[in-house]
Amino acid sequence: MKKYYLLTPGPTPIPPEVALKEAMPILHHRTSEFGQIFKDTAEGLKYVFCTQQEVYILAGSGTAAMETAVVNFLSAGDEIIVASCGIFGDRWKNIAKAYGVKVIDVSVPYGEAVKPEEIEKALKENPNVKAVFTTFTETSTGVANDIKAIGKIVAGFKAILVVDAVSGLGGQEFLTDAWEVDVVVSGSQKGFMLAPGLAFITVSKKAWELAEKSTLPKFYFDLKKYKKSYLTDETPFTPPVTLIVSLNQAIKMIQSEGLENMWAQYALLAKATRAAMQGLGLELFAKVPCEVVTSVKVDESIGSKIVKLLRDNYGVSIAGGQGAMKGKIIRFAHMGYIGKADLLVGISCLEMALTQLGVNVKCGAGIGIAEEVLLKG
Amino acid sequence: MKKYYLLTPGPTPIPPEVALKEAMPILHHRTSEFGQIFKDTAEGLKYVFCTQQEVYILAGSGTAAMETAVVNFLSAGDEIIVASCGIFGDRWKNIAKAYGVKVIDVSVPYGEAVKPEEIEKALKENPNVKAVFTTFTETSTGVANDIKAIGKIVAGFKAILVVDAVSGLGGQEFLTDAWEVDVVVSGSQKGFMLAPGLAFITVSKKAWELAEKSTLPKFYFDLKKYKKSYLTDETPFTPPVTLIVSLNQAIKMIQSEGLENMWAQYALLAKATRAAMQGLGLELFAKVPCEVVTSVKVDESIGSKIVKLLRDNYGVSIAGGQGAMKGKIIRFAHMGYIGKADLLVGISCLEMALTQLGVNVKCGAGIGIAEEVLLKG
Repeated sequence: MKKYYLLTPGPTPIPPEVALKEAMPILHHRTSEFGQIFKDTAEGLKYVFCTQQEVYILAGSGTAAMETAVVNFLSAGDEIIVASCGIFGDRWKNIAKAYGVKVIDVSVPYGEAVKPEEIEKALKENPNVKAVFTTFTETSTGVANDIKAIGKIVAGFKAILVVDAVSGLGGQEFLTDAWEVDVVVSGSQKGFMLAPGLAFITVSKKAWELAEKSTLPKFYFDLKKYKKSYLTDETPFTPPVTLIVSLNQAIKMIQSEGLENMWAQYALLAKATRAAMQGLGLELFAKVPCEVVTSVKVDESIGSKIVKLLRDNYGVSIAGGQGAMKGKIIRFAHMGYIGKADLLVGISCLEMALTQLGVNVKCGAGIGIAEEVLLKG
Repeated sequence: MKKYYLLTPGPTPIPPEVALKEAMPILHHRTSEFGQIFKDTAEGLKYVFCTQQEVYILAGSGTAAMETAVVNFLSAGDEIIVASCGIFGDRWKNIAKAYGVKVIDVSVPYGEAVKPEEIEKALKENPNVKAVFTTFTETSTGVANDIKAIGKIVAGFKAILVVDAVSGLGGQEFLTDAWEVDVVVSGSQKGFMLAPGLAFITVSKKAWELAEKSTLPKFYFDLKKYKKSYLTDETPFTPPVTLIVSLNQAIKMIQSEGLENMWAQYALLAKATRAAMQGLGLELFAKVPCEVVTSVKVDESIGSKIVKLLRDNYGVSIAGGQGAMKGKIIRFAHMGYIGKADLLVGISCLEMALTQLGVNVKCGAGIGIAEEVLLKG
């Protein structure tokens, strides 16, 4: 009998109240019963996104929402600015390339945060730029970007600001409207405490105006279809009914807890984790760490072994590095239904795993510090 | 306390064994535990599709798989033949139009089956045609098309055959390999007894060769990414973990029941429904009825009222007509986890609803005939 502890930046654990909703007898999606749940859910999403705009729900992964953000606002040959600081930021470039969109690249090395002033410079030098694409919390490196500052800059140009907030939304302050973010994409399996399978996207008035000129081909991702269907509390294509019913429950729990309280809780978990890692003599990877995932440098000879040992021996799932960072970092998530006890299990088991792998750490040295940070609250 | 009876052609009811799997603690998708379930599920899908080829799983609705079938095999300006007999067949034309693909239309009026000889004629007259797109069981009209005959014809040309089997697969004999269907698309919420959110697609060797020449833009729907990920029992983007775990359970149940037995069961339900409707003096809409959904003509003045009354008074969900057929037909599904008792409830409640709406039917006249058909087996 193995018990599993998910400390990965997606999927995150699902609260039993939410999981059981997935198991309820399925409703037909063109009924007033489901319509009411759908309407209520779409309304609740506005609370989590901190927006007055509609939040469109698509059946798909976060990448589906990213592609939706490209094909609805651009045309082949259009110029965009991409400010990337990791693998998910780079994905904007790959999607743009697939559609013949020209990328002006203001990316930074992995581990660093994107530079708002570089975006401003690029916008001034390239007056035809249609959109700026960037990432809120870059899951692959654990870096947070200053979306508020970037929003302020982009608002002064005709370009729209598109932000991948797949991992950060719900986990760390993100104010769609107040920060003037035109298009925000997210997914169900991180801050929303839900299974993967739903993607979300918001569209500002400025972005809808740009959408009118977009000629990139689209059908399933065509947001105009969603806009029209939302008028009758529906989606244009069969929605993942059970996931939406469980999302409704998850949002109720988020509202009951209060977004600000959740942000504070994750910030505390992140602070405790960072202190514990430094207490173990480990170095943090992100120069500007976000609150939803902490990335830690490890010796490449044992990077992948740590992840495997934690999973196989202790049932603890943390994330390793992706792509070019494979084996070089480990990552702990603090988002969704991850609490203090989960974190304590993760740090304790890490201490044991490091000892087993011959690293000179003192058992209790990291977890003790984490406890002290948590005690101070 | 309302009890619901789903007799709609998607979503269909979910067996409790499958629903409860959705509520199990979520696994991380890059683990050997989930990898094993994924591999087992992908293998099981081959059984349901009657194919030796891989069946790719996408996060999305059936339409996502349809768009995948267009963008992976074609280039702008390519010519295709579309043989449509309903709303879902027409969707092929709409997707093609969105991507600048030229359609040679050999559609038939709603209620009729597409004509294989017309497809053959069009293929002979248009030697540049890259693909033939059609529908197996057209959910909107209840018609079944002769895919076996069409497969035999298309195999003699360089064009590939793409079939939308979203509603028919698992419900009625469909042999992907034996019938030489190059690309088959389906979805989770019908014959698979699962919630919506997963889309499936198969690709023959002939279709992969065509894929090499395709230049339509794609990223999320790029099947080459899925082909590569499948080598390590993964998907390129975060898969809907809970839906895949429950799909694994559903396929085990389908295998235990036996596909042939399920096909026979649905055929019997369809036969009983057709006989009952005729016993009530109602006319069938489909000239070549499929076994997974029975469509029945009703007076336009009460068409929508029947559906609403059944749902509101009896908790019975059947489908009305879509688009141009709104109010003109009603539809009963026989697929997935729909059994004899469900059908009896549906027909009995229909008799009561028709009586309430002032239609001159004799209560018991239809259901009695249905019972007799079921008794004969």
